[in-house]
Amino acid sequence: MDAAAPSAVELAAAVTEQLRDYLRGRRRDAAYIGADYAVLTEALEEFVLRGGKRLRPAFAYWGWRAVAGSEPGPSVLRLFSALEMLHACALVHDDVIDASATRRGLPTVHRIFTERHRSHNWHGSPEQFGLSAAILLGDLSLVWADDIVATADLDAAAHRRVQRVWSAIRTEVLGGQYLDIVNESSGADTVASAMTVNIYKTASYTITRPLQLGAAAAADRPEISEAFHELGTDLGVAFQLRDDVLGVFGDPAVTGKPSGDDLRSGKRTVLLAEAVELAEKHDPVAAKLLRTSIGTELSDVQVKEVCTAIESVGALAAVEDRIDRLMRKAIGILNAAPIDAQARLGLIELARLAANRSA
Amino acid sequence: MDAAAPSAVELAAAVTEQLRDYLRGRRRDAAYIGADYAVLTEALEEFVLRGGKRLRPAFAYWGWRAVAGSEPGPSVLRLFSALEMLHACALVHDDVIDASATRRGLPTVHRIFTERHRSHNWHGSPEQFGLSAAILLGDLSLVWADDIVATADLDAAAHRRVQRVWSAIRTEVLGGQYLDIVNESSGADTVASAMTVNIYKTASYTITRPLQLGAAAAADRPEISEAFHELGTDLGVAFQLRDDVLGVFGDPAVTGKPSGDDLRSGKRTVLLAEAVELAEKHDPVAAKLLRTSIGTELSDVQVKEVCTAIESVGALAAVEDRIDRLMRKAIGILNAAPIDAQARLGLIELARLAANRSA
Repeated sequence: MDAAAPSAVELAAAVTEQLRDYLRGRRRDAAYIGADYAVLTEALEEFVLRGGKRLRPAFAYWGWRAVAGSEPGPSVLRLFSALEMLHACALVHDDVIDASATRRGLPTVHRIFTERHRSHNWHGSPEQFGLSAAILLGDLSLVWADDIVATADLDAAAHRRVQRVWSAIRTEVLGGQYLDIVNESSGADTVASAMTVNIYKTASYTITRPLQLGAAAAADRPEISEAFHELGTDLGVAFQLRDDVLGVFGDPAVTGKPSGDDLRSGKRTVLLAEAVELAEKHDPVAAKLLRTSIGTELSDVQVKEVCTAIESVGALAAVEDRIDRLMRKAIGILNAAPIDAQARLGLIELARLAANRSA
Repeated sequence: MDAAAPSAVELAAAVTEQLRDYLRGRRRDAAYIGADYAVLTEALEEFVLRGGKRLRPAFAYWGWRAVAGSEPGPSVLRLFSALEMLHACALVHDDVIDASATRRGLPTVHRIFTERHRSHNWHGSPEQFGLSAAILLGDLSLVWADDIVATADLDAAAHRRVQRVWSAIRTEVLGGQYLDIVNESSGADTVASAMTVNIYKTASYTITRPLQLGAAAAADRPEISEAFHELGTDLGVAFQLRDDVLGVFGDPAVTGKPSGDDLRSGKRTVLLAEAVELAEKHDPVAAKLLRTSIGTELSDVQVKEVCTAIESVGALAAVEDRIDRLMRKAIGILNAAPIDAQARLGLIELARLAANRSA
């Protein structure tokens, strides 16, 4: 890894190396609990090492460099990789909650264990077994994430600062997840309720708190923590808008999600709201198509028709424009913040990556 | 609370007071995340304060006194109450895994949220909503448990010792839960596989690790930690045998579980194995009754007949005898261990309570 400015790929590889090493050690230490348990810990290892952009540790890394200037040592990188263990818990439990069949193009954890039960011809319900194993695997990931933070090699004051951010990020992401299922159930479709979910499930969880975690590990700089909060809010919205675009226009081979998923499920996104609004003003044919298509079982040909309509009424361009404006605002915050110059460049690159990613 | 030797009831009340205070603070601090989230945190508070014997904090308390002699202060009692927050996670997730309808005589958390969804006439599946809310509530309980331990007011060395026990207890209990569902699914009925589950789901989790946690918070005494390990294994088996007896002969008004539950579900317990074995040797009529009844949908009258048979073949007496022998062995370990005299008496009382409880 280049000490001056690692690329996103180099950083992700370094975090993955920390995770690989940590999980190897934890699995070896837990081997006394039995060979059957090793199946669960192996599945956790496999899930965590499967990939992912390691975006949260990357924000923590640049949060550290923003205040420390210097490169964090391996033990600090280990601390930041706890964010990925937490994320694994969030993803595995979320997949149970959403009853999702695939994740990153592969079967979800509960599906893997359902299949395991089925292939062994075991007693009882394969689905209930899969669900149960996924709950426990997620719990274990959360526990091992916490153990990383609790044993981090930091002085007492830094440890207290990190613990405060760590406490907040976990309480908030669970809040975001719960508010999300309540909104979906109750049919709440106000911008305010969607924004609250977005703040706690995306902006705070993916950007603000990881940045603050990195900064807290390095130094006590409340004014920078505050700038990171502003930055996280703007970038978080941009990140979510990119998600909306990918949910409709993303390449399934890259996103790992079936094409047209958001259209078929009728997910309430800014992109679709924008498309319906623009069509109703300027294009009655497109408006009718959108109204009768979104949220129904579309064929692949129909998905393409709807995509064309969303583009032709100008909704895609409008959302891309919003992402651009948010990015410019975020870069303005970064330019004004009293942070390390190299970290500023790294954060701008990372922000671009988050807002312009293809998966 | 009497400084010399609090009763089990006084100790439980002091732990509950710590939990009440902690949960009030955490809920107030999380209020900014939204009113809907307050519903979830309130349900967690209600579940934790609902009751329970606070057995695990009690073992930690006496583990502390065994090596420290003195009474632990409120902040140490707060640390021990983290075991109850962990336990709440284990119970709530276990109830989802077992699809249990009641807990402590009241609806389980997933049932409460299923009902909530239904009473609001929300969209989607009430059961899926209940399941999802229970997963998130359990996660939150685990997170807040970890926060207690991470911020415990201990010196650095004590903190490291406590963290090692805390890491082990969580990794082990998840192992015990996973091995339990694997055994149930695969139909493993060896004594060895049942013992492994018992050790990690009961002995280590309820007795050994809480004792060691208390001792670790007070001093570095590896030889006492080792004695607690021996003690926990014997007492843990006694505790489990008492569970087996209560599952058949317990008073539903006291246990909060329907009468005859273990008979109807055909749970593989030592009591039932003993009953079948004794009947086959000495009482062919009872043997036939047991073989054709256990694991079937019994009426209340049939449950009574089976209970009578289990008693008349001598299985109940045999299991009670085993509990007695384990108790004597445990008391022998306590008498030989170089621990505080007052703590020895407290632990003997607590051991009796665990092995002879009625719920």
